[in-house]
Amino acid sequence: MTAPSSFGERVRGALETFGPLCVGIDPHRALLEGWGLEDSAAGAREFGLRVVEASAGAVGIVKPQVSFFERHGSAGFAALEEVLAAARAAGLLVIADAKRGDIGSTMDAYAEAWLRPGSPLEADAMTASPFLGVGALKSTFALAEASGKGVFVLAATSNPEASAAQGAVLGGRRTLSAAIIAEVSGRNALVTPESEWASTGFVIGATVDWDRAGLAAFAPPAPILAPGFGHQGAGPADLLLRFGELAPCVIASESRSILEAGPTRLGAVIKARVSEYRGIRA
Amino acid sequence: MTAPSSFGERVRGALETFGPLCVGIDPHRALLEGWGLEDSAAGAREFGLRVVEASAGAVGIVKPQVSFFERHGSAGFAALEEVLAAARAAGLLVIADAKRGDIGSTMDAYAEAWLRPGSPLEADAMTASPFLGVGALKSTFALAEASGKGVFVLAATSNPEASAAQGAVLGGRRTLSAAIIAEVSGRNALVTPESEWASTGFVIGATVDWDRAGLAAFAPPAPILAPGFGHQGAGPADLLLRFGELAPCVIASESRSILEAGPTRLGAVIKARVSEYRGIRA
Repeated sequence: MTAPSSFGERVRGALETFGPLCVGIDPHRALLEGWGLEDSAAGAREFGLRVVEASAGAVGIVKPQVSFFERHGSAGFAALEEVLAAARAAGLLVIADAKRGDIGSTMDAYAEAWLRPGSPLEADAMTASPFLGVGALKSTFALAEASGKGVFVLAATSNPEASAAQGAVLGGRRTLSAAIIAEVSGRNALVTPESEWASTGFVIGATVDWDRAGLAAFAPPAPILAPGFGHQGAGPADLLLRFGELAPCVIASESRSILEAGPTRLGAVIKARVSEYRGIRA
Repeated sequence: MTAPSSFGERVRGALETFGPLCVGIDPHRALLEGWGLEDSAAGAREFGLRVVEASAGAVGIVKPQVSFFERHGSAGFAALEEVLAAARAAGLLVIADAKRGDIGSTMDAYAEAWLRPGSPLEADAMTASPFLGVGALKSTFALAEASGKGVFVLAATSNPEASAAQGAVLGGRRTLSAAIIAEVSGRNALVTPESEWASTGFVIGATVDWDRAGLAAFAPPAPILAPGFGHQGAGPADLLLRFGELAPCVIASESRSILEAGPTRLGAVIKARVSEYRGIRA
Protein backbone atom coordinates (compact mmCIF):
# COMPACT_ATOMS: atom_id res chain seq x y z
CA MET A 1 0.00 0.00 0.00
CA THR A 2 1.39 3.38 -0.96
CA ALA A 3 1.11 6.24 1.47
CA PRO A 4 -1.98 8.37 0.84
CA SER A 5 -1.36 11.68 -0.83
CA SER A 6 -0.99 14.46 1.71
CA PHE A 7 -3.87 16.90 2.09
CA GLY A 8 -1.68 19.72 0.78
CA GLU A 9 -0.93 17.78 -2.39
CA ARG A 10 -4.59 16.86 -2.81
CA VAL A 11 -5.55 20.53 -2.57
CA ARG A 12 -2.91 21.40 -5.13
CA GLY A 13 -4.34 18.78 -7.49
CA ALA A 14 -7.91 19.97 -6.93
CA LEU A 15 -7.01 23.61 -7.63
CA GLU A 16 -5.09 22.68 -10.78
CA THR A 17 -7.98 20.58 -12.10
CA PHE A 18 -10.97 22.70 -11.13
CA GLY A 19 -9.66 26.19 -10.37
CA PRO A 20 -9.99 28.03 -7.07
CA LEU A 21 -13.75 28.06 -6.48
CA CYS A 22 -14.92 26.31 -3.31
CA VAL A 23 -18.66 26.04 -2.71
CA GLY A 24 -19.88 26.73 0.81
CA ILE A 25 -22.61 24.50 2.23
CA ASP A 26 -24.48 26.95 4.45
CA PRO A 27 -28.03 25.85 5.23
CA HIS A 28 -28.85 29.24 6.68
CA ARG A 29 -32.45 29.76 7.74
CA ALA A 30 -33.04 32.36 5.01
CA LEU A 31 -31.53 30.14 2.32
CA LEU A 32 -33.58 27.13 3.41
CA GLU A 33 -36.67 29.29 3.07
CA GLY A 34 -35.58 30.53 -0.35
CA TRP A 35 -35.09 26.93 -1.45
CA GLY A 36 -38.55 25.95 -0.22
CA LEU A 37 -37.08 23.71 2.47
CA GLU A 38 -38.02 23.33 6.12
CA ASP A 39 -35.82 25.07 8.71
CA SER A 40 -34.91 21.75 10.32
CA ALA A 41 -32.28 19.03 10.29
CA ALA A 42 -34.15 17.38 7.40
CA GLY A 43 -34.08 20.65 5.47
CA ALA A 44 -30.38 21.10 6.12
CA ARG A 45 -29.73 17.51 4.97
CA GLU A 46 -31.66 17.99 1.73
CA PHE A 47 -29.93 21.33 1.12
CA GLY A 48 -26.49 19.86 1.74
CA LEU A 49 -27.03 16.84 -0.48
CA ARG A 50 -28.24 19.03 -3.35
CA VAL A 51 -25.22 21.30 -3.08
CA VAL A 52 -22.96 18.25 -3.12
CA GLU A 53 -24.71 16.93 -6.22
CA ALA A 54 -24.36 20.25 -8.05
CA SER A 55 -20.72 20.63 -6.99
CA ALA A 56 -19.46 17.14 -7.85
CA GLY A 57 -17.37 17.22 -11.00
CA ALA A 58 -17.61 21.02 -11.25
CA VAL A 59 -15.43 22.14 -8.33
CA GLY A 60 -12.82 20.32 -6.29
CA ILE A 61 -13.62 21.53 -2.80
CA VAL A 62 -16.71 22.17 -0.67
CA LYS A 63 -16.93 23.78 2.75
CA PRO A 64 -19.85 22.89 5.02
CA GLN A 65 -20.44 25.50 7.72
CA VAL A 66 -20.83 23.42 10.87
CA SER A 67 -22.85 25.97 12.87
CA PHE A 68 -25.85 25.73 10.55
CA PHE A 69 -26.06 22.00 11.26
CA GLU A 70 -25.18 22.27 14.96
CA ARG A 71 -28.11 24.65 15.34
CA HIS A 72 -30.36 21.61 14.94
CA GLY A 73 -28.54 19.59 17.62
CA SER A 74 -27.78 15.89 17.22
CA ALA A 75 -30.28 15.60 14.34
CA GLY A 76 -28.41 18.37 12.56
CA PHE A 77 -25.13 16.55 13.12
CA ALA A 78 -26.68 13.34 11.72
CA ALA A 79 -27.62 15.36 8.62
CA LEU A 80 -24.09 16.73 8.42
CA GLU A 81 -22.66 13.21 8.64
CA GLU A 82 -24.67 12.27 5.56
CA VAL A 83 -23.59 15.40 3.69
CA LEU A 84 -19.91 14.85 4.57
CA ALA A 85 -20.07 11.21 3.46
CA ALA A 86 -21.85 12.07 0.20
CA ALA A 87 -19.32 14.79 -0.61
CA ARG A 88 -16.34 12.55 0.04
CA ALA A 89 -17.92 9.71 -1.92
CA ALA A 90 -18.35 12.13 -4.84
CA GLY A 91 -14.62 12.83 -4.82
CA LEU A 92 -14.89 16.30 -3.35
CA LEU A 93 -12.38 17.53 -0.79
CA VAL A 94 -14.37 18.56 2.27
CA ILE A 95 -13.33 21.32 4.65
CA ALA A 96 -15.42 21.29 7.83
CA ASP A 97 -15.67 24.95 8.81
CA ALA A 98 -15.80 24.36 12.56
CA LYS A 99 -13.30 26.92 13.92
CA ARG A 100 -12.62 24.70 16.93
CA GLY A 101 -9.93 25.79 19.35
CA ASP A 102 -8.95 24.31 22.70
CA ILE A 103 -5.93 22.73 24.41
CA GLY A 104 -4.42 19.34 25.10
CA SER A 105 -6.64 16.29 25.04
CA THR A 106 -9.72 18.50 24.59
CA MET A 107 -8.39 19.80 21.28
CA ASP A 108 -7.31 16.29 20.34
CA ALA A 109 -10.92 15.18 20.78
CA TYR A 110 -12.03 17.82 18.26
CA ALA A 111 -9.33 16.66 15.86
CA GLU A 112 -10.54 13.09 16.25
CA ALA A 113 -14.14 14.15 15.68
CA TRP A 114 -13.42 15.76 12.32
CA LEU A 115 -10.25 14.16 11.01
CA ARG A 116 -9.96 10.59 12.28
CA PRO A 117 -10.53 8.09 9.46
CA GLY A 118 -13.78 6.31 10.21
CA SER A 119 -15.16 9.01 12.51
CA PRO A 120 -18.85 9.69 11.82
CA LEU A 121 -18.01 13.34 11.09
CA GLU A 122 -14.91 12.56 9.02
CA ALA A 123 -13.89 15.42 6.72
CA ASP A 124 -10.66 16.06 4.81
CA ALA A 125 -9.77 19.16 6.77
CA MET A 126 -11.11 21.43 9.48
CA THR A 127 -10.73 25.08 10.37
CA ALA A 128 -9.19 25.82 13.78
CA SER A 129 -8.81 28.88 16.00
CA PRO A 130 -5.38 29.80 17.44
CA PHE A 131 -6.65 31.98 20.29
CA LEU A 132 -5.16 29.52 22.80
CA GLY A 133 -1.89 29.59 20.88
CA VAL A 134 -0.66 27.95 17.69
CA GLY A 135 1.28 25.63 20.00
CA ALA A 136 -1.99 24.27 21.37
CA LEU A 137 -2.91 23.13 17.85
CA LYS A 138 0.30 21.28 17.04
CA SER A 139 -0.94 17.86 18.03
CA THR A 140 -3.98 18.49 15.81
CA PHE A 141 -1.68 19.25 12.88
CA ALA A 142 0.23 16.03 13.53
CA LEU A 143 -2.92 13.96 13.94
CA ALA A 144 -4.26 15.41 10.69
CA GLU A 145 -1.11 14.84 8.70
CA ALA A 146 -0.74 11.24 9.91
CA SER A 147 -3.97 10.41 8.03
CA GLY A 148 -3.57 12.64 4.98
CA LYS A 149 -5.83 15.30 6.48
CA GLY A 150 -5.39 19.05 6.84
CA VAL A 151 -6.04 22.01 9.10
CA PHE A 152 -6.72 25.64 8.24
CA VAL A 153 -5.62 27.99 11.01
CA LEU A 154 -7.54 31.25 11.34
CA ALA A 155 -4.92 33.90 10.65
CA ALA A 156 -6.45 37.09 9.30
CA THR A 157 -10.16 37.50 8.87
CA SER A 158 -11.82 40.36 7.07
CA ASN A 159 -14.68 41.16 9.43
CA PRO A 160 -14.39 44.71 10.80
CA GLU A 161 -14.39 43.60 14.46
CA ALA A 162 -11.38 41.32 13.99
CA SER A 163 -8.58 43.85 13.79
CA ALA A 164 -8.83 44.57 17.52
CA ALA A 165 -7.60 41.05 18.26
CA GLN A 166 -5.67 40.03 15.20
CA GLY A 167 -3.92 43.37 14.81
CA ALA A 168 -2.45 43.22 18.30
CA VAL A 169 1.33 43.39 18.27
CA LEU A 170 3.78 40.83 19.60
CA GLY A 171 7.24 41.71 20.86
CA GLY A 172 6.81 45.24 19.57
CA ARG A 173 7.16 44.01 16.03
CA ARG A 174 4.62 41.95 14.22
CA THR A 175 0.88 41.53 14.37
CA LEU A 176 -0.77 38.48 15.84
CA SER A 177 -1.84 37.52 12.30
CA ALA A 178 1.74 37.72 11.02
CA ALA A 179 3.02 35.78 14.04
CA ILE A 180 0.50 32.99 13.48
CA ILE A 181 1.52 32.65 9.83
CA ALA A 182 5.20 32.68 10.75
CA GLU A 183 4.83 30.05 13.48
CA VAL A 184 2.78 27.69 11.32
CA SER A 185 5.06 28.20 8.32
CA GLY A 186 8.12 27.50 10.44
CA ARG A 187 6.63 24.18 11.44
CA ASN A 188 5.52 23.49 7.85
CA ALA A 189 9.10 23.98 6.66
CA LEU A 190 10.24 21.25 9.04
CA VAL A 191 7.60 18.63 8.22
CA THR A 192 6.76 19.18 4.55
CA PRO A 193 8.64 17.12 1.94
CA GLU A 194 10.64 19.13 -0.60
CA SER A 195 8.53 20.62 -3.41
CA GLU A 196 5.24 19.60 -1.82
CA TRP A 197 2.50 21.77 -0.41
CA ALA A 198 2.03 21.83 3.34
CA SER A 199 -1.14 20.29 4.79
CA THR A 200 -1.56 22.96 7.44
CA GLY A 201 -2.83 26.12 5.79
CA PHE A 202 -4.49 29.38 6.71
CA VAL A 203 -7.81 31.17 6.71
CA ILE A 204 -7.18 34.65 5.29
CA GLY A 205 -10.12 36.80 4.28
CA ALA A 206 -10.31 37.81 0.63
CA THR A 207 -10.63 41.46 1.54
CA VAL A 208 -7.86 41.58 4.16
CA ASP A 209 -5.47 44.50 3.74
CA TRP A 210 -2.16 42.66 3.68
CA ASP A 211 0.03 45.63 4.48
CA ARG A 212 -2.13 46.75 7.35
CA ALA A 213 -2.28 43.20 8.70
CA GLY A 214 1.51 42.98 8.44
CA LEU A 215 1.34 39.89 6.25
CA ALA A 216 4.05 38.65 3.92
CA ALA A 217 4.54 35.73 1.56
CA PHE A 218 5.43 32.45 3.19
CA ALA A 219 7.08 29.15 2.36
CA PRO A 220 6.59 26.27 1.82
CA PRO A 221 3.36 26.79 -0.15
CA ALA A 222 0.29 26.13 1.98
CA PRO A 223 -3.37 26.28 1.04
CA ILE A 224 -5.15 29.54 1.86
CA LEU A 225 -8.86 29.26 2.52
CA ALA A 226 -10.24 32.67 1.60
CA PRO A 227 -13.81 33.45 2.56
CA GLY A 228 -15.12 36.78 1.36
CA PHE A 229 -15.46 36.00 -2.32
CA GLY A 230 -18.90 36.63 -3.73
CA HIS A 231 -21.27 38.43 -1.41
CA GLN A 232 -18.62 40.00 0.79
CA GLY A 233 -17.24 41.90 -2.17
CA ALA A 234 -14.22 40.08 -3.58
CA GLY A 235 -14.32 38.66 -7.10
CA PRO A 236 -12.07 36.59 -9.34
CA ALA A 237 -9.92 39.64 -10.15
CA ASP A 238 -9.02 39.96 -6.47
CA LEU A 239 -7.16 36.67 -6.55
CA LEU A 240 -4.03 38.18 -8.09
CA LEU A 241 -4.67 41.68 -6.80
CA ARG A 242 -4.86 40.62 -3.16
CA PHE A 243 -2.79 37.48 -2.96
CA GLY A 244 -0.08 38.19 -5.55
CA GLU A 245 2.40 35.35 -5.80
CA LEU A 246 0.30 33.34 -3.33
CA ALA A 247 -2.74 33.43 -5.66
CA PRO A 248 -2.19 29.82 -6.82
CA CYS A 249 -2.63 28.67 -3.20
CA VAL A 250 -6.00 30.32 -2.76
CA ILE A 251 -9.24 28.42 -2.24
CA ALA A 252 -11.87 31.04 -3.06
CA SER A 253 -14.87 30.22 -0.95
CA GLU A 254 -18.31 31.47 -1.99
CA SER A 255 -21.53 30.65 -0.23
CA ARG A 256 -24.51 32.96 -0.40
CA SER A 257 -23.63 34.41 -3.82
CA ILE A 258 -23.95 30.91 -5.28
CA LEU A 259 -26.48 29.29 -2.99
CA GLU A 260 -29.14 31.95 -3.43
CA ALA A 261 -29.46 30.83 -7.06
CA GLY A 262 -31.76 28.15 -5.65
CA PRO A 263 -31.71 24.42 -6.24
CA THR A 264 -32.67 24.37 -9.94
CA ARG A 265 -30.18 26.99 -11.13
CA LEU A 266 -27.40 26.00 -8.74
CA GLY A 267 -25.46 23.72 -11.11
CA ALA A 268 -25.45 26.29 -13.90
CA VAL A 269 -24.40 29.10 -11.58
CA ILE A 270 -21.51 27.04 -10.20
CA LYS A 271 -20.29 26.21 -13.73
CA ALA A 272 -20.51 29.85 -14.83
CA ARG A 273 -18.60 31.01 -11.78
CA VAL A 274 -15.91 28.36 -12.31
CA SER A 275 -15.41 29.75 -15.82
CA GLU A 276 -15.03 33.29 -14.50
CA TYR A 277 -12.23 32.17 -12.18
CA ARG A 278 -10.66 30.15 -15.00
CA GLY A 279 -10.61 33.27 -17.20
CA ILE A 280 -8.56 35.09 -14.60
CA ARG A 281 -6.03 32.34 -14.10
CA ALA A 282 -5.47 31.66 -17.81
CA MET B 1 -45.26 36.24 34.31
CA THR B 2 -42.22 37.78 35.95
CA ALA B 3 -39.05 38.14 33.94
CA PRO B 4 -36.69 35.22 34.49
CA SER B 5 -33.67 35.91 36.67
CA SER B 6 -30.67 36.88 34.62
CA PHE B 7 -27.89 34.34 34.23
CA GLY B 8 -25.53 36.57 36.19
CA GLU B 9 -27.93 36.66 39.13
CA ARG B 10 -28.48 32.91 38.93
CA VAL B 11 -24.72 32.36 39.10
CA ARG B 12 -24.48 34.67 42.08
CA GLY B 13 -27.20 32.67 43.83
CA ALA B 14 -25.56 29.35 42.99
CA LEU B 15 -22.17 30.49 44.31
CA GLU B 16 -23.71 31.84 47.52
CA THR B 17 -25.60 28.61 48.12
CA PHE B 18 -23.07 26.00 47.09
CA GLY B 19 -19.68 27.71 47.00
CA PRO B 20 -17.40 28.04 44.01
CA LEU B 21 -16.87 24.42 42.94
CA CYS B 22 -18.05 23.55 39.44
CA VAL B 23 -17.82 19.92 38.33
CA GLY B 24 -16.55 19.30 34.80
CA ILE B 25 -18.25 16.62 32.74
CA ASP B 26 -15.35 15.33 30.67
CA PRO B 27 -15.92 11.83 29.29
CA HIS B 28 -12.31 11.57 28.25
CA ARG B 29 -11.23 8.22 26.82
CA ALA B 30 -8.96 7.48 29.80
CA LEU B 31 -11.68 8.38 32.31
CA LEU B 32 -14.26 6.22 30.54
CA GLU B 33 -11.82 3.33 30.79
CA GLY B 34 -11.17 4.03 34.46
CA TRP B 35 -14.92 4.03 35.09
CA GLY B 36 -15.33 0.69 33.30
CA LEU B 37 -17.35 2.32 30.53
CA GLU B 38 -17.15 1.88 26.77
CA ASP B 39 -15.36 4.57 24.75
CA SER B 40 -18.53 5.38 22.82
CA ALA B 41 -21.51 7.72 22.81
CA ALA B 42 -23.30 5.31 25.16
CA GLY B 43 -20.33 5.40 27.54
CA ALA B 44 -20.22 9.21 27.42
CA ARG B 45 -23.97 9.33 28.14
CA GLU B 46 -23.70 7.01 31.13
CA PHE B 47 -20.69 8.93 32.42
CA GLY B 48 -22.45 12.28 32.07
CA LEU B 49 -25.65 11.14 33.74
CA ARG B 50 -23.72 9.73 36.71
CA VAL B 51 -21.79 12.98 37.15
CA VAL B 52 -25.05 14.91 37.06
CA GLU B 53 -26.56 12.61 39.69
CA ALA B 54 -23.56 13.00 42.00
CA SER B 55 -23.46 16.79 41.49
CA ALA B 56 -27.15 17.58 41.98
CA GLY B 57 -27.72 19.18 45.36
CA ALA B 58 -23.99 19.26 46.12
CA VAL B 59 -22.75 21.94 43.70
CA GLY B 60 -24.56 24.64 41.78
CA ILE B 61 -22.84 24.46 38.40
CA VAL B 62 -21.59 21.77 36.02
CA LYS B 63 -19.54 22.22 32.87
CA PRO B 64 -19.79 19.57 30.14
CA GLN B 65 -16.82 19.62 27.78
CA VAL B 66 -18.41 19.49 24.34
CA SER B 67 -15.42 18.04 22.48
CA PHE B 68 -15.60 14.72 24.33
CA PHE B 69 -19.17 14.26 23.08
CA GLU B 70 -18.53 15.69 19.61
CA ARG B 71 -15.80 13.09 19.20
CA HIS B 72 -18.59 10.51 18.86
CA GLY B 73 -20.46 12.49 16.18
CA SER B 74 -24.23 12.83 16.15
CA ALA B 75 -24.61 9.94 18.59
CA GLY B 76 -22.32 11.79 20.99
CA PHE B 77 -24.42 14.93 20.60
CA ALA B 78 -27.57 12.91 21.32
CA ALA B 79 -25.87 11.71 24.53
CA LEU B 80 -24.94 15.30 25.36
CA GLU B 81 -28.54 16.41 24.83
CA GLU B 82 -29.64 13.89 27.47
CA VAL B 83 -26.93 14.99 29.88
CA LEU B 84 -27.77 18.68 29.42
CA ALA B 85 -31.48 18.02 29.98
CA ALA B 86 -30.85 15.88 33.07
CA ALA B 87 -28.56 18.52 34.57
CA ARG B 88 -31.02 21.34 34.00
CA ALA B 89 -33.90 19.24 35.31
CA ALA B 90 -31.84 18.62 38.46
CA GLY B 91 -31.58 22.37 39.03
CA LEU B 92 -27.93 22.64 38.05
CA LEU B 93 -26.66 25.59 36.04
CA VAL B 94 -25.03 24.16 32.93
CA ILE B 95 -22.13 25.79 31.12
CA ALA B 96 -21.51 24.18 27.72
CA ASP B 97 -17.76 24.44 27.25
CA ALA B 98 -17.84 24.78 23.47
CA LYS B 99 -15.44 27.68 22.82
CA ARG B 100 -17.31 28.56 19.64
CA GLY B 101 -16.25 31.66 17.76
CA ASP B 102 -17.39 32.96 14.40
CA ILE B 103 -19.05 36.04 12.89
CA GLY B 104 -22.49 37.30 11.92
CA SER B 105 -25.24 34.80 11.25
CA THR B 106 -22.77 31.92 11.61
CA MET B 107 -22.06 32.89 15.21
CA ASP B 108 -25.77 33.49 15.78
CA ALA B 109 -26.39 29.88 14.72
CA TYR B 110 -23.99 28.68 17.43
CA ALA B 111 -25.75 30.89 19.96
CA GLU B 112 -29.08 29.41 18.92
CA ALA B 113 -27.70 25.88 19.17
CA TRP B 114 -26.62 26.26 22.79
CA LEU B 115 -28.72 29.05 24.26
CA ARG B 116 -32.11 29.18 22.54
CA PRO B 117 -34.87 27.98 24.86
CA GLY B 118 -36.17 24.72 23.46
CA SER B 119 -33.05 23.96 21.41
CA PRO B 120 -32.05 20.28 21.70
CA LEU B 121 -28.64 21.34 23.05
CA GLU B 122 -30.02 24.04 25.37
CA ALA B 123 -27.61 24.97 28.18
CA ASP B 124 -27.60 27.95 30.56
CA ALA B 125 -24.39 29.39 29.19
CA MET B 126 -21.65 28.67 26.69
CA THR B 127 -17.99 29.54 26.38
CA ALA B 128 -17.00 31.61 23.33
CA SER B 129 -13.74 32.59 21.64
CA PRO B 130 -13.05 36.25 20.80
CA PHE B 131 -10.39 35.62 18.15
CA LEU B 132 -12.66 37.21 15.53
CA GLY B 133 -13.21 40.17 17.85
CA VAL B 134 -15.38 40.77 20.91
CA GLY B 135 -17.57 42.78 18.54
CA ALA B 136 -18.38 39.63 16.59
CA LEU B 137 -19.85 38.12 19.76
CA LYS B 138 -22.13 40.98 20.70
CA SER B 139 -25.25 39.57 19.09
CA THR B 140 -24.55 36.33 20.96
CA PHE B 141 -24.44 38.25 24.25
CA ALA B 142 -27.75 39.92 23.39
CA LEU B 143 -29.37 36.68 22.29
CA ALA B 144 -28.22 35.03 25.51
CA GLU B 145 -29.40 37.80 27.80
CA ALA B 146 -32.82 37.98 26.15
CA SER B 147 -33.52 34.45 27.46
CA GLY B 148 -31.75 34.64 30.81
CA LYS B 149 -28.69 32.87 29.43
CA GLY B 150 -24.99 33.71 29.68
CA VAL B 151 -21.71 33.67 27.79
CA PHE B 152 -18.15 33.22 29.07
CA VAL B 153 -15.62 34.93 26.83
CA LEU B 154 -12.14 33.40 26.71
CA ALA B 155 -9.93 36.14 28.09
CA ALA B 156 -6.78 34.75 29.69
CA THR B 157 -6.01 31.06 29.69
CA SER B 158 -3.24 29.46 31.66
CA ASN B 159 -1.82 27.04 29.09
CA PRO B 160 1.82 27.87 28.29
CA GLU B 161 1.20 28.28 24.54
CA ALA B 162 -1.45 30.95 25.06
CA SER B 163 0.69 33.93 25.98
CA ALA B 164 1.90 34.29 22.40
CA ALA B 165 -1.60 35.27 21.32
CA GLN B 166 -3.23 36.63 24.43
CA GLY B 167 -0.19 38.61 25.52
CA ALA B 168 -0.05 40.56 22.26
CA VAL B 169 -0.33 44.29 22.79
CA LEU B 170 -2.97 46.66 21.44
CA GLY B 171 -2.34 50.32 20.75
CA GLY B 172 1.05 50.07 22.48
CA ARG B 173 -0.67 49.78 25.84
CA ARG B 174 -2.63 46.83 27.00
CA THR B 175 -2.60 43.12 26.31
CA LEU B 176 -5.23 41.41 24.21
CA SER B 177 -6.51 39.76 27.41
CA ALA B 178 -6.89 43.11 29.15
CA ALA B 179 -8.55 44.63 26.09
CA ILE B 180 -11.09 41.79 25.90
CA ILE B 181 -12.00 42.24 29.56
CA ALA B 182 -12.28 46.01 29.15
CA GLU B 183 -14.46 45.77 26.04
CA VAL B 184 -16.83 43.21 27.56
CA SER B 185 -16.99 45.10 30.88
CA GLY B 186 -17.74 48.34 29.09
CA ARG B 187 -20.72 46.70 27.44
CA ASN B 188 -21.73 45.03 30.72
CA ALA B 189 -21.81 48.43 32.41
CA LEU B 190 -24.33 49.64 29.84
CA VAL B 191 -26.70 46.67 29.93
CA THR B 192 -26.53 45.37 33.51
CA PRO B 193 -29.10 46.65 36.02
CA GLU B 194 -27.68 48.47 39.05
CA SER B 195 -26.33 46.12 41.75
CA GLU B 196 -26.76 43.00 39.62
CA TRP B 197 -24.13 40.70 38.20
CA ALA B 198 -23.55 40.79 34.46
CA SER B 199 -24.51 37.73 32.42
CA THR B 200 -21.50 37.94 30.14
CA GLY B 201 -18.46 36.75 32.03
CA PHE B 202 -14.94 35.55 31.37
CA VAL B 203 -12.78 32.47 31.22
CA ILE B 204 -9.62 33.22 33.18
CA GLY B 205 -7.28 30.38 34.10
CA ALA B 206 -6.74 29.77 37.80
CA THR B 207 -2.98 29.91 37.39
CA VAL B 208 -2.86 33.04 35.19
CA ASP B 209 -0.31 35.61 36.32
CA TRP B 210 -2.51 38.70 36.56
CA ASP B 211 0.27 41.26 36.48
CA ARG B 212 1.99 39.65 33.54
CA ALA B 213 -1.33 39.36 31.70
CA GLY B 214 -2.01 43.03 32.40
CA LEU B 215 -5.31 42.26 34.09
CA ALA B 216 -7.13 44.47 36.58
CA ALA B 217 -10.36 44.32 38.53
CA PHE B 218 -13.48 45.12 36.55
CA ALA B 219 -17.03 46.31 37.12
CA PRO B 220 -19.88 45.47 37.17
CA PRO B 221 -19.25 42.07 38.76
CA ALA B 222 -19.29 39.29 36.18
CA PRO B 223 -18.84 35.56 36.65
CA ILE B 224 -15.32 34.23 36.09
CA LEU B 225 -15.10 30.65 34.91
CA ALA B 226 -11.69 29.48 36.13
CA PRO B 227 -10.40 26.18 34.84
CA GLY B 228 -7.11 25.04 36.31
CA PHE B 229 -8.32 24.10 39.75
CA GLY B 230 -7.49 20.58 40.80
CA HIS B 231 -5.16 18.76 38.46
CA GLN B 232 -3.62 21.81 36.87
CA GLY B 233 -2.29 22.91 40.22
CA ALA B 234 -4.59 25.52 41.75
CA GLY B 235 -6.44 24.78 44.98
CA PRO B 236 -9.02 26.49 47.17
CA ALA B 237 -6.37 28.77 48.68
CA ASP B 238 -5.69 30.23 45.24
CA LEU B 239 -9.14 31.73 45.09
CA LEU B 240 -8.21 34.73 47.21
CA LEU B 241 -4.53 34.61 46.35
CA ARG B 242 -5.07 34.84 42.61
CA PHE B 243 -8.38 36.62 42.24
CA GLY B 244 -8.32 39.00 45.24
CA GLU B 245 -11.44 41.12 45.40
CA LEU B 246 -12.85 39.22 42.43
CA ALA B 247 -12.73 35.90 44.32
CA PRO B 248 -16.50 35.93 45.03
CA CYS B 249 -17.12 35.91 41.26
CA VAL B 250 -15.04 32.80 40.60
CA ILE B 251 -16.48 29.51 39.41
CA ALA B 252 -13.70 27.05 40.26
CA SER B 253 -13.90 24.31 37.68
CA GLU B 254 -12.41 20.90 38.43
CA SER B 255 -12.64 17.91 36.17
CA ARG B 256 -10.03 15.18 36.28
CA SER B 257 -9.15 15.68 39.97
CA ILE B 258 -12.74 14.83 40.86
CA LEU B 259 -13.75 12.50 38.05
CA GLU B 260 -10.88 10.09 38.50
CA ALA B 261 -12.43 9.14 41.87
CA GLY B 262 -14.62 6.82 39.81
CA PRO B 263 -18.38 6.43 39.87
CA THR B 264 -18.79 4.95 43.37
CA ARG B 265 -16.63 7.46 45.24
CA LEU B 266 -17.63 10.46 43.10
CA GLY B 267 -20.40 11.82 45.35
CA ALA B 268 -18.22 11.67 48.47
CA VAL B 269 -15.28 13.30 46.72
CA ILE B 270 -17.45 16.15 45.45
CA LYS B 271 -18.87 16.77 48.94
CA ALA B 272 -15.40 16.74 50.51
CA ARG B 273 -14.10 19.16 47.93
CA VAL B 274 -17.07 21.49 48.41
CA SER B 275 -16.21 21.61 52.14
CA GLU B 276 -12.61 22.51 51.39
CA TYR B 277 -13.74 25.50 49.30
CA ARG B 278 -16.26 26.45 51.99
CA GLY B 279 -13.49 26.49 54.59
CA ILE B 280 -11.58 29.06 52.57
CA ARG B 281 -14.52 31.37 51.99
CA ALA B 282 -15.74 31.34 55.61
